[in-house]
Amino acid sequence: MAKKENKQEFVAHITPRDVDFSQWYTDVILKTEMVDYAPVRGCMVIRPYGYAVWELIQKQLDERFKATGHQNVYMPMFIPESLLKKESEHVEGFAPEVAWVTHGGNEELAERLVVRPTSETLFCTMYAKWIQSYRDLPMLYNQWCSVVRWEKTTRPFLRTAEFLWQEGHTMHATAQESEEETERMLGVYKEFVENVLAMPVIAGKKSEKEKFAGALSTYSIEAMMQDGKALQAGTSHNFGDKFSRAFDVTYLSKEGKLEYCYETSWGVSTRLIGGIIMVHGDERGLKMPPRVAPVQAVILPIAAHKEGVLEGAQQIRDELEKAGIRVKLDDREGYSAGWKFNEWEMKGVPVRVEVGPRDLAQGVVTVCRRDTFEKFTLPIQGLAQALTALMDQIHDHMYQTALKFMQEHTREVYNMDQLNEAVQDGFALGMWCGDQACEDKIKEVTGAPTRNVPRGRKPIADTCVCCGKPAKTLIYFAKQY
Amino acid sequence: MAKKENKQEFVAHITPRDVDFSQWYTDVILKTEMVDYAPVRGCMVIRPYGYAVWELIQKQLDERFKATGHQNVYMPMFIPESLLKKESEHVEGFAPEVAWVTHGGNEELAERLVVRPTSETLFCTMYAKWIQSYRDLPMLYNQWCSVVRWEKTTRPFLRTAEFLWQEGHTMHATAQESEEETERMLGVYKEFVENVLAMPVIAGKKSEKEKFAGALSTYSIEAMMQDGKALQAGTSHNFGDKFSRAFDVTYLSKEGKLEYCYETSWGVSTRLIGGIIMVHGDERGLKMPPRVAPVQAVILPIAAHKEGVLEGAQQIRDELEKAGIRVKLDDREGYSAGWKFNEWEMKGVPVRVEVGPRDLAQGVVTVCRRDTFEKFTLPIQGLAQALTALMDQIHDHMYQTALKFMQEHTREVYNMDQLNEAVQDGFALGMWCGDQACEDKIKEVTGAPTRNVPRGRKPIADTCVCCGKPAKTLIYFAKQY
Repeated sequence: MAKKENKQEFVAHITPRDVDFSQWYTDVILKTEMVDYAPVRGCMVIRPYGYAVWELIQKQLDERFKATGHQNVYMPMFIPESLLKKESEHVEGFAPEVAWVTHGGNEELAERLVVRPTSETLFCTMYAKWIQSYRDLPMLYNQWCSVVRWEKTTRPFLRTAEFLWQEGHTMHATAQESEEETERMLGVYKEFVENVLAMPVIAGKKSEKEKFAGALSTYSIEAMMQDGKALQAGTSHNFGDKFSRAFDVTYLSKEGKLEYCYETSWGVSTRLIGGIIMVHGDERGLKMPPRVAPVQAVILPIAAHKEGVLEGAQQIRDELEKAGIRVKLDDREGYSAGWKFNEWEMKGVPVRVEVGPRDLAQGVVTVCRRDTFEKFTLPIQGLAQALTALMDQIHDHMYQTALKFMQEHTREVYNMDQLNEAVQDGFALGMWCGDQACEDKIKEVTGAPTRNVPRGRKPIADTCVCCGKPAKTLIYFAKQY
Repeated sequence: MAKKENKQEFVAHITPRDVDFSQWYTDVILKTEMVDYAPVRGCMVIRPYGYAVWELIQKQLDERFKATGHQNVYMPMFIPESLLKKESEHVEGFAPEVAWVTHGGNEELAERLVVRPTSETLFCTMYAKWIQSYRDLPMLYNQWCSVVRWEKTTRPFLRTAEFLWQEGHTMHATAQESEEETERMLGVYKEFVENVLAMPVIAGKKSEKEKFAGALSTYSIEAMMQDGKALQAGTSHNFGDKFSRAFDVTYLSKEGKLEYCYETSWGVSTRLIGGIIMVHGDERGLKMPPRVAPVQAVILPIAAHKEGVLEGAQQIRDELEKAGIRVKLDDREGYSAGWKFNEWEMKGVPVRVEVGPRDLAQGVVTVCRRDTFEKFTLPIQGLAQALTALMDQIHDHMYQTALKFMQEHTREVYNMDQLNEAVQDGFALGMWCGDQACEDKIKEVTGAPTRNVPRGRKPIADTCVCCGKPAKTLIYFAKQY
């Protein structure tokens, strides 16, 4: 009983989700030491537990980029004002939210520099120099870096003045190839987010209004948070030859003709970490998807002072480590087992392995799943293999749970009242005439912008949910982060 | 013969080292597509072949940091002016060479921000918040990021306005522990640079004049380039409690007393890539140390149109890849074998594997080493194992070659004339009284600043090489990058 009281005292600091979801989020990210506020407005400090998640994301995503033929590069963080201005829609989209460098040392610069909000302009400048002939195409580059957007309202991971991301920038010989690349990378994102982060997403095309500044078309993956709001978790843009014309990126075709290149860009950011937290977390804190959990299994020695317990725990730790499981043995002194249980639960470690003298004598350990709280014993013999399999089960269960939530909170809507009701706690899927006036009106009335046009879904009605005129397409609406 | 002519034509574009070492360097980095100039003054674009080296450096160094107990974090790229000013020597050292952000969007900022030149001030601010008691110590963090220093004269990799680096920042309970950490990380750098980059270095302590702004003591590793100049390849600083006092970083000791923490920081940067080029390169271009070579073995099919050649080459490629060798099969059409030979030689790939019909029929391939140009056949059976061993041999040979060069270009000096002569093409090792006036004078007369005080070397004389007064210490002098 003492333990239970201890536990409740411990977790009492986290605001329940249904009382104040936003405060729950803040409590979780700060108390689990994922992130902290920085002494610079709107910026975040990513602490070891949060950064370890980003490293695991980077590693697994980078493998996918390389497997699809991409190479990493590094462009400067500064962009001269004149370069940013070369593509008019692009500069209009970004100029209001950039940080300006005006002085170097004690001297005023002849030309102001922006700290990159995104790097299309730099990539295009270099591509114009590097690409000569069709032999050089496609050119498939990516960079991992930080970017700055001078946002008014900021929240750690979700929207910060500076954030970490990757930005892929590619050049192709034909419009068809750039469209294929745009969709391929959207597919890579969807597969990664679902199979690694256990976050179901809706992939589709953004409306004209919601597309990226300067793009021909933008695709996105959208995830549902537990408050029913959407998180745009990744985007992939097809620029056609728009930037290539502005930056004179051309190539000599096989036939010896000078042609413009076709361009794409695509990115995901540390925002994904915010998504993981808001899709999976619960009253006790984080619930980490096993494939990006910095610690997949924590070993807690019970009655560690008894003979053989600590040694047994160490042996198990070594065994699991050897099998490639990210394992931590919590042998800290001066903390009760109950306190440790709670801390690791709060940190969302997928599996707790209790190693006590009685279990050891029987050649077993007690295992507790973070996702279901199920508790059971497993033989020490073959434990690594059993836990590896368990990680996959936990992943699948977390994904299915999130998918079920998303399905239950997505409603087909046929009029404005239904739409308004649906977006109070989820996604609305309705028909739209394609007119921006309706899109604007819906956002004004319900607070929900369009998300994207899902692929391969049949129309559910003939008329626009807003104006009643003939509908062009099915589209998602949701409040957003 | 035709091949040879071809080769000479191809490499004629690289200026010979002894004609103009600086132009040789520029030719090599641009023609091998490691780097390009950016459309921003003093910045560089790191291209795939250069960035792949950085990724291999990061991976192998990061493993060493983690093995010594460090964790990665991410701090903001901006530092408010008031924070930078908290430690007076530090701000004096950096203020003249920082980039200032004065505007966010269309608004002037209330307080100017610097783009980080280094992050001691941010780490100290956060450590003051995170560290409560002795249980929290040591706190051993590192970050991989880019930093900006508004240098007047820049050269890709060696000195650029923006560069990529890692900065470790640690806090300890005692002065002894921070000194141990400072030296430990210097040791990690030395071991890494020698065992991975095949670059011999001299490890030692910097003079008071040459130490880092705000540090109590700075240690460095110094490598010798082929023009005899020194490249400071890594530094490790002990701050004692100087910053802790300025930033109020304290902890409650076991005895319940409030104490100041003791701090270190240490860093290496993309400068290491410049070092690799200038230590190992030759008239034909790059010579990549195998452990950071993006391509360790290139397979060139000879008479690729003949039956079985391409398939044989592919099979060998798959085999080598499986064994963990970074291998590339160059099956491009429209390029002669001679042209390919030269290109991969210029790119410094350690081993070329030629796969031709006659060799294949005999179950062998022809292998050519980039470091010695030795050519020999190896059986296809067991090739992966043989090449893995060969990589180690090449590494050792490159290291020994560079070590011999450094030893031959290092002279003990007993007067100013000898010192002046020695630093024309190498390092001078002489006695010094410890007085900055002599250090200044030597630099003025010979152009060579002090490098560092090597460890465990016996004095070679009693008097200062400059003033003739009693000498305190043996120290290296060299011209520098």
